[in-house]
Amino acid sequence: MSSEEDEILELHERNTGVLSMHPEFDVKNKTDLGKAYTPGVAKIAKIIEKDPSKKDVYTMSGKLVALVTDGSAVLGLGNVGPGAGLPIVEGKCLLYKTFSGVDALPVAINQVNVDEFVQTLKNMAPTFAGIHLEDIKAPRCFEIQEKLEKELDLPIYHDDQQGTAIVVLAGLINAAKLVHKSLTNMSVVVNGAGASGLATAKLLAYVGMKKIVLVDKDGVIQINDKDESNNKYQKDFVNELGYEPNGQTLSDVIKDKDVFIGLSVNDVLSKEDVKNMAKDPIIFALANPKPEIMPDDAIDAGAAIVATGSSQYPNQVNNVLAFPGLFKALLENNVKKVTYDIQETVAKAIANVLGDKIDKDHIVPDVFNKDIVDTICQTVRNKVN
Amino acid sequence: MSSEEDEILELHERNTGVLSMHPEFDVKNKTDLGKAYTPGVAKIAKIIEKDPSKKDVYTMSGKLVALVTDGSAVLGLGNVGPGAGLPIVEGKCLLYKTFSGVDALPVAINQVNVDEFVQTLKNMAPTFAGIHLEDIKAPRCFEIQEKLEKELDLPIYHDDQQGTAIVVLAGLINAAKLVHKSLTNMSVVVNGAGASGLATAKLLAYVGMKKIVLVDKDGVIQINDKDESNNKYQKDFVNELGYEPNGQTLSDVIKDKDVFIGLSVNDVLSKEDVKNMAKDPIIFALANPKPEIMPDDAIDAGAAIVATGSSQYPNQVNNVLAFPGLFKALLENNVKKVTYDIQETVAKAIANVLGDKIDKDHIVPDVFNKDIVDTICQTVRNKVN
Repeated sequence: MSSEEDEILELHERNTGVLSMHPEFDVKNKTDLGKAYTPGVAKIAKIIEKDPSKKDVYTMSGKLVALVTDGSAVLGLGNVGPGAGLPIVEGKCLLYKTFSGVDALPVAINQVNVDEFVQTLKNMAPTFAGIHLEDIKAPRCFEIQEKLEKELDLPIYHDDQQGTAIVVLAGLINAAKLVHKSLTNMSVVVNGAGASGLATAKLLAYVGMKKIVLVDKDGVIQINDKDESNNKYQKDFVNELGYEPNGQTLSDVIKDKDVFIGLSVNDVLSKEDVKNMAKDPIIFALANPKPEIMPDDAIDAGAAIVATGSSQYPNQVNNVLAFPGLFKALLENNVKKVTYDIQETVAKAIANVLGDKIDKDHIVPDVFNKDIVDTICQTVRNKVN
Repeated sequence: MSSEEDEILELHERNTGVLSMHPEFDVKNKTDLGKAYTPGVAKIAKIIEKDPSKKDVYTMSGKLVALVTDGSAVLGLGNVGPGAGLPIVEGKCLLYKTFSGVDALPVAINQVNVDEFVQTLKNMAPTFAGIHLEDIKAPRCFEIQEKLEKELDLPIYHDDQQGTAIVVLAGLINAAKLVHKSLTNMSVVVNGAGASGLATAKLLAYVGMKKIVLVDKDGVIQINDKDESNNKYQKDFVNELGYEPNGQTLSDVIKDKDVFIGLSVNDVLSKEDVKNMAKDPIIFALANPKPEIMPDDAIDAGAAIVATGSSQYPNQVNNVLAFPGLFKALLENNVKKVTYDIQETVAKAIANVLGDKIDKDHIVPDVFNKDIVDTICQTVRNKVN
């Protein structure tokens, strides 16, 4: 084991994870005990019994986000199970607290049945102010989110879907400016039609982009596709959009397109493909840990702008740009649904953080840019109030 | 509203509850990000995928106790519902952190069906290192605990049951010493046959007390009782113990008894009743907020030792003496079941905290006595290792 690996293990072992519970009140004597616990809490229980919404005022449930996984689709690892999904959601909870002060709890659910999974969260719902779903495989994640949104009056956010869609749109808004193209006129190939690919395609369609082709590992998803490996969510999207793809393969449909968005696996886009794109191609090669095409190769083949998911290259399009500020804004403004309108609002806010100071290597702010969360919160506040 | 009430509300509102999430690692730059989150966490996910037990080493789930309520039996308030139960369990989570550093999360479950309730916790189980049940009405709480213990390899502790039983036994051990009686020879009336009364009677029977009479609001529970309002847990206990009560009412059976343990409602024990008890009667009048008999009246009627649940009188027999140290000891020693043996061990530890410095007004240590948790942990460690 490398010393770097040792360091990582030691860090996560030192305090049994990277998070703890923190007391907001120092109980020093019996008077304090009476205020923080009985008999004081009886007064609060009575208030909440009369008006259940008051629990969000007087208890942690008014601020606590459940960061929920079943570990069925962990980036780069696949279906590792709920326990092995925990360190990933716990890491993300740490980022919530670090970047925006949001209190989030790592939750692993050991249940493969969709309705049981939903029922579990429904039963636990009084405990939380919102639900952040993570690393749940498609199409299961679509069903879960749909049902939770229907049954609960809480914001339900799936980071792999809405988070990715938001940061891609944010980057694309600025990339379009830099190549002097109209965002909504650009044609796009989205490679990867899982949770993130489909959610991204949907958000791009929502903001007015009409020319979107969806490609998965079996090729281009056609209008009225007969391929039974494609799920109804993919088919419905392609049919409703009604944009006729010009071919069966990624290499076919990439021709003359303005944008490639890779949310798939490494090494699927060739230099030849990039050369065949329209003038000033925009390449978002977001596969992790290795991109769909190496940035140097893409630039060599004529790409105007290249973004990846990695911090090793310029333009890191990473969900951490979105979720800490987004959920802070949802809670602050009592927003109960992550609509497309909210997603667009947050994407525009992220795109605006750098103002005019964008260039081909800076289409999105650095993840540590302290203006991101404030800008998102301010923009959402203006939008919903 | 009094200014004291204002203060309590302000305290619980200030930070939206009395607990927050606390980051155990300061993420300052991309190197930190890579260790605390991706790609670092992928290494840990792989380790846990191979050996699921490692999640307790590298994630918060190895230390986090779920403090679960449905709000169906809140002390002094009754069935207030899951949301209104939250401030009570949250207060208790604060006490865990304050007294023993245990990380506990307030959880409200909105589900009346016992099997669904159990299934919810089963589905969530990878998230937690143990389950503390609170304010769940009997006999529902007995079924829930039985099923959880059967289905999960986690310590399941119901504070109203095992916590109360432990602190009563602790107090009784020292009270017996002070009146120079043998603990196991003493005769006892337990008034109140709900969760706490029955669990206390069972623990007293476990340590060897044979003469126990159980009384509820409809009177004494007889051997082969025909009363249909009594549940099978109550009937089973009385039948298995086989101790014949000498009457139908509390006033009947209290005659010549050594100990009265009240886990019921205020004002049920008269001075006359105390006068009718054996020499040097021991009175635990633990009803909250008002005891079954006022301490002055009990002493006036000849009681040798009086304990209550309140901090206003000497001998506060309160569960906070037990649960912080108990769960710390369970987690430290990887104990997966709160057996009667563990309960007895913890009770003896609490009884031993004051050593020889016990007297009729100090049969248990003050709840703020810093030796309690250490003594419990040391005693449990010696017992199980």
